[in-house]
Amino acid sequence: MFRYSKIKSPTFVVNTSQVINNIENMLQGLPENCVFRPHFKTHNNSVTAKIFKNFGIDKITVSSVEMALYFRQLGFRDITIAFPVNVREQRSLNRLAKNTILGLCFSNLESLHLVSKFKSINANAWIEINTGQNRSGIDWDDCNSIEKMIEIISKSENLVFKGFLSHTGETYSCRDKNEIIDIAWQSFEKLRKLKARFSEYSPMLSIGDTPSCSVLRNFNEIDEIRPGNFVYYDLMMLQKQVCKLGDIAASVFCPVVDINEIRNEIVIHGGSVHFGKEFLDLGGQIIFGKAVSHISNNLKTGIDENLISLSQEHGIIKISSCNIKDFHVGDLVEIIPVHVCLVANYMKNSTLHF
Amino acid sequence: MFRYSKIKSPTFVVNTSQVINNIENMLQGLPENCVFRPHFKTHNNSVTAKIFKNFGIDKITVSSVEMALYFRQLGFRDITIAFPVNVREQRSLNRLAKNTILGLCFSNLESLHLVSKFKSINANAWIEINTGQNRSGIDWDDCNSIEKMIEIISKSENLVFKGFLSHTGETYSCRDKNEIIDIAWQSFEKLRKLKARFSEYSPMLSIGDTPSCSVLRNFNEIDEIRPGNFVYYDLMMLQKQVCKLGDIAASVFCPVVDINEIRNEIVIHGGSVHFGKEFLDLGGQIIFGKAVSHISNNLKTGIDENLISLSQEHGIIKISSCNIKDFHVGDLVEIIPVHVCLVANYMKNSTLHF
Repeated sequence: MFRYSKIKSPTFVVNTSQVINNIENMLQGLPENCVFRPHFKTHNNSVTAKIFKNFGIDKITVSSVEMALYFRQLGFRDITIAFPVNVREQRSLNRLAKNTILGLCFSNLESLHLVSKFKSINANAWIEINTGQNRSGIDWDDCNSIEKMIEIISKSENLVFKGFLSHTGETYSCRDKNEIIDIAWQSFEKLRKLKARFSEYSPMLSIGDTPSCSVLRNFNEIDEIRPGNFVYYDLMMLQKQVCKLGDIAASVFCPVVDINEIRNEIVIHGGSVHFGKEFLDLGGQIIFGKAVSHISNNLKTGIDENLISLSQEHGIIKISSCNIKDFHVGDLVEIIPVHVCLVANYMKNSTLHF
Repeated sequence: MFRYSKIKSPTFVVNTSQVINNIENMLQGLPENCVFRPHFKTHNNSVTAKIFKNFGIDKITVSSVEMALYFRQLGFRDITIAFPVNVREQRSLNRLAKNTILGLCFSNLESLHLVSKFKSINANAWIEINTGQNRSGIDWDDCNSIEKMIEIISKSENLVFKGFLSHTGETYSCRDKNEIIDIAWQSFEKLRKLKARFSEYSPMLSIGDTPSCSVLRNFNEIDEIRPGNFVYYDLMMLQKQVCKLGDIAASVFCPVVDINEIRNEIVIHGGSVHFGKEFLDLGGQIIFGKAVSHISNNLKTGIDENLISLSQEHGIIKISSCNIKDFHVGDLVEIIPVHVCLVANYMKNSTLHF
């Protein structure tokens, strides 16, 4: 049983049994030939990592060399860095490649040229494909560049071509489940065309966004999925109908430090050093999180109040649906963050699993 | 001489000589009877703290008990926590009060009632006054509550009344220097009225915002200033004419990991885990930082390109004033953050002083 009395200052609280449910739900109905390589950037901590390990999951995704080294020393030996190779990190990559099945991600010819000459970095090479998010990667229809890249990889002594990797993060701008399904299928279709076009190299297809991985169970020719956010979920995923309120497995507990009955606001210790400044626009009202008023049997029964303002350590919650006289300084308020991956990172040293 | 070659991954770089200049400038012309109690939440690190110490500065401000304990073990013994007392932290406050000249900040009767009974917490008591920011504190004209609070403090065995403390953070929403001066004087005027009204208790007046402390040198009846941001400054302060470009003493160095010549964008390793999501709205264009193209003799000679998008580890810089062909993967880009206090905290473990 979780003891609130332990919490004295802003604390990121992870509900372990809900984490287990979320992993089980993600695995359920996943085609047998589809590799599950969860992204560990969301939690970025050893306790949640261990829960994954207990499921027998040993292939993981990370977003930096630093994170790869962290999980490597926790015993994970098959790691893909789903981020364009940073050629300045040659030395750390060397170290990592020595005892890891390392996947690297190439999104341009220049990096690939350089790394193909770093003889001691033996790695699986993925070509990052931009299917529409326009962040990084080779445009999916730029077959000319893709062909050149496969050629360099094939000729190199240290790299082995694995296939095409895409974040397919264009689903993060969708509004609801149906839109996510539409956009995901359009992106998958682009990847399937590439797979057919370059079939002689037997490329694998790897995709990585939580929205499509959560709402779809038919991935057709996709060979690997790399969702991360699903392990905790958050307000952004709730708003897009990717999860239900009860699926959310992490929140921030903040002490009430001031109450203003005239403005109908409570001030919490919990600011932008804890939440960042990621916000949701609810029809003109900017919010940085939602305060949950009741928890029973680990089911969040209602989301009521908005976190409307953040400074470095202060947060302001507007009270609209309950009586401000019910709040006292020293109370704890549970806040569901907008984007949990950031909060988990900012609050790494103030995290409790229960 | 600073060696860029050391930097392999996103790094928060502090220019020590500019930090010294900024402290010197802040001290210059400060009335002798005005206490300088800088806010250490901005840097929150030991190296910058030591620079302050070398100036003989031993009175400091922090924004949490955790931060107070951190600087206490670095040798600072006179610490004001300029944040509404969090009554859940009684035990840590006990520990801190044992060997510290501790200043506590009360923004409501309820907390004050409770702490006045925590006999072992001997502290100086400040009443936090809201002069217009509407974040926390007693409204400046609520003399009834203020009177009650002074009475509780006076009757308590453990608290000593010091005076009225205000963040005066309403200057952060000003657009330029003149507006800052106007707003600051209005806020000071409110505090001066309080000082006169409660003169029998000889209250000190303490204010704390970098904008007014940077642009004013006449503080009249203000007895203490607590600016923090000025030690590094940032884009927000530059935009409000609080500092010049050359005054900015900290920035983030990020490696270029991808280049898109078609969209005229470069992708850096540097995302919201490093920068947060604090933004400036430049007439409809949202930016998360500015890339500086040249540095010579530690003077930043131009700010050219906008950091227009952030995801967890990726940042996208739109190239408009220089030639994208001049950029290569592995280059370092120097980014001036929007709000340096947050970035210094997020990047605490990736900080270099030179």
